[in-house]
Amino acid sequence: MSAPLQNDSFLRACLRQPTEHTPVWLMRQAGRYLPEYRATRAKAGSFMGLATNRDYATEVTLQPLERYPLDAAILFSDILTVPDAMGLGLSFAIGEGPKFEKVVRDEAAVAALEVPDMNKLRYVFDAVSSIRKALNGRVPLIGFSGSPWTLACYMVEGGGSDDYRQVKSLMYARPDLMHRILQVNADAVAAYLNAQIEAGAQAVMLFDSWGGVLADGMFQRFSLDYSRRVLAQLKTEHEGQRIPRILFTKGGGLWLDEIADAGADVVGLDWTVNLGRARAQLGHKVALQGNLDPNVLFAPPDAVREQVRAVLDSFGAPGPDSGHIFNLGHGISQHTPPESVTALVDEVHAYSRLLRQRRGG
Amino acid sequence: MSAPLQNDSFLRACLRQPTEHTPVWLMRQAGRYLPEYRATRAKAGSFMGLATNRDYATEVTLQPLERYPLDAAILFSDILTVPDAMGLGLSFAIGEGPKFEKVVRDEAAVAALEVPDMNKLRYVFDAVSSIRKALNGRVPLIGFSGSPWTLACYMVEGGGSDDYRQVKSLMYARPDLMHRILQVNADAVAAYLNAQIEAGAQAVMLFDSWGGVLADGMFQRFSLDYSRRVLAQLKTEHEGQRIPRILFTKGGGLWLDEIADAGADVVGLDWTVNLGRARAQLGHKVALQGNLDPNVLFAPPDAVREQVRAVLDSFGAPGPDSGHIFNLGHGISQHTPPESVTALVDEVHAYSRLLRQRRGG
Repeated sequence: MSAPLQNDSFLRACLRQPTEHTPVWLMRQAGRYLPEYRATRAKAGSFMGLATNRDYATEVTLQPLERYPLDAAILFSDILTVPDAMGLGLSFAIGEGPKFEKVVRDEAAVAALEVPDMNKLRYVFDAVSSIRKALNGRVPLIGFSGSPWTLACYMVEGGGSDDYRQVKSLMYARPDLMHRILQVNADAVAAYLNAQIEAGAQAVMLFDSWGGVLADGMFQRFSLDYSRRVLAQLKTEHEGQRIPRILFTKGGGLWLDEIADAGADVVGLDWTVNLGRARAQLGHKVALQGNLDPNVLFAPPDAVREQVRAVLDSFGAPGPDSGHIFNLGHGISQHTPPESVTALVDEVHAYSRLLRQRRGG
Repeated sequence: MSAPLQNDSFLRACLRQPTEHTPVWLMRQAGRYLPEYRATRAKAGSFMGLATNRDYATEVTLQPLERYPLDAAILFSDILTVPDAMGLGLSFAIGEGPKFEKVVRDEAAVAALEVPDMNKLRYVFDAVSSIRKALNGRVPLIGFSGSPWTLACYMVEGGGSDDYRQVKSLMYARPDLMHRILQVNADAVAAYLNAQIEAGAQAVMLFDSWGGVLADGMFQRFSLDYSRRVLAQLKTEHEGQRIPRILFTKGGGLWLDEIADAGADVVGLDWTVNLGRARAQLGHKVALQGNLDPNVLFAPPDAVREQVRAVLDSFGAPGPDSGHIFNLGHGISQHTPPESVTALVDEVHAYSRLLRQRRGG
């Protein structure tokens, strides 16, 4: 049996239940902006050395919680573990993004793809169990995966891209091959997230980091349909607890109505979205997560606090059946001064309590 | 006196007047995907050698018109000529983007900025006159500039960026400095575009290529307000002809109503926007330009034609007082096969004529 949860504000907000303050966590909160993270990474030798070692992964997952009173932990891992388990050979060169040894661009490579044996991802599930144990009920643990489309971008491009030329060429020239990649990805991601839930993840998040690069019409068919396919296969409960699911599409602001109907409990928003308008549009059916520009954290603490209040004011006073989880609109930058995060977390908690009091008064 | 215009479909569509077909031109249509462009550039030695030489600039501006029956020409130049004239020292290293020798990040650098002497940009106005003459009334010539915000991004970052950290840090930490940069940029851009109009540009376009990276609220204050300041200063007529103005904000789909009220005749759209919905929303007050994903051009000709028809169908049958100019949602890629453009232009003309016949029948 797991330890009882001491701070369930994040899970409650996901399910649009009242909370005493707005819960906050940050995408990539365990990361390079923290000196203690860089020290652990140096010991591990490489990013994958860190991610595949249960003890290191546990250590870095908990580091931001030692510094800041965050309301959730997120598994330390990478969004590309699934294609790595498919045999594509993931690596990270220093100072560069992810790279795959093999790319998936032709009929043969697509035909060879299959849902990987989940035992190849055992290191992730072991990390989840280990982190859950180490958290000891302090805050809930979020599991995650890249979305089928986002994984496909990396699999076809072979790494990051600034124009998505290869993946879009394949999509426009051979939609049949793209659909097959996305089907395999969706079923693999579903199995992967279900195994994380079984290992102890108390919520799961799907990162559609590159959904926003698609044209209107193509996004729905090549990204959202497959996120929906993942969500439809996920366990909604584990050990009697609801497992909320978050769907975050960077650059997806134009498609919020459709995203909110894909089966997630929470929709993640980037900073281009007007949070108040999104609440009016979707707040009756999903909770919202977001949406501070991570670059705000390069300003002095007072400016950080001001922008945090602007986000909370944009959402407005929390009412019954409304849910807001404070977050950035994208991962925190490695160049962020750690004291900016202190100001952010403190202001979210303090000001969101004040908003609740004002409403009550 | 200038030669009379033989094909005014582009100008008519900008002003929402009826046309026999949907006019088409492509952002960056004179560019590296054309072998004849690469040959001229090789002669010129460098990108700036090309852009600052009136004869070369004229030659490359006309090259795409020799290949394709495009409905407009656009001045061959760069969006960063204005900050270069401010003394920041623009250069282009081979295979890399633009770089400035000096960056504008502190109080002193901001204080030193001023609207440059337009004589430093004489080479641009000379190119405009020369191109106008060479066109000899074939199609209209579009002049352009980067928007105040987009110029500021490059001036503060010193070149391209993938996170806009420097410019956003300055904006959040020292909004007063950022406003001062943007005021100078806006007044400089207005003077620059007016001089292009006097030299013969028959329409002008403001490229807010990086407006879409801003947070909701910040976009309005730091990008759109200054595009509005430019537009308010522009000559609306020259030699008895209306000079339509186009405002294109890449990633601006969430702010279309506000963009459409900034004073432009035409709003440019990227491929994430649903063109039919944008027409319903804005079509009664502005014409729309866009919005094919440039990556479509990597697919075979039949797929290109299919996607072109999808864009035209999304806009729907043209009616009275509606204006659509077909374009990509961003500049054409240097890797584009030239024959894809043949298919695109042909399909825009043929299918848009068919749509008009159907409506008439």
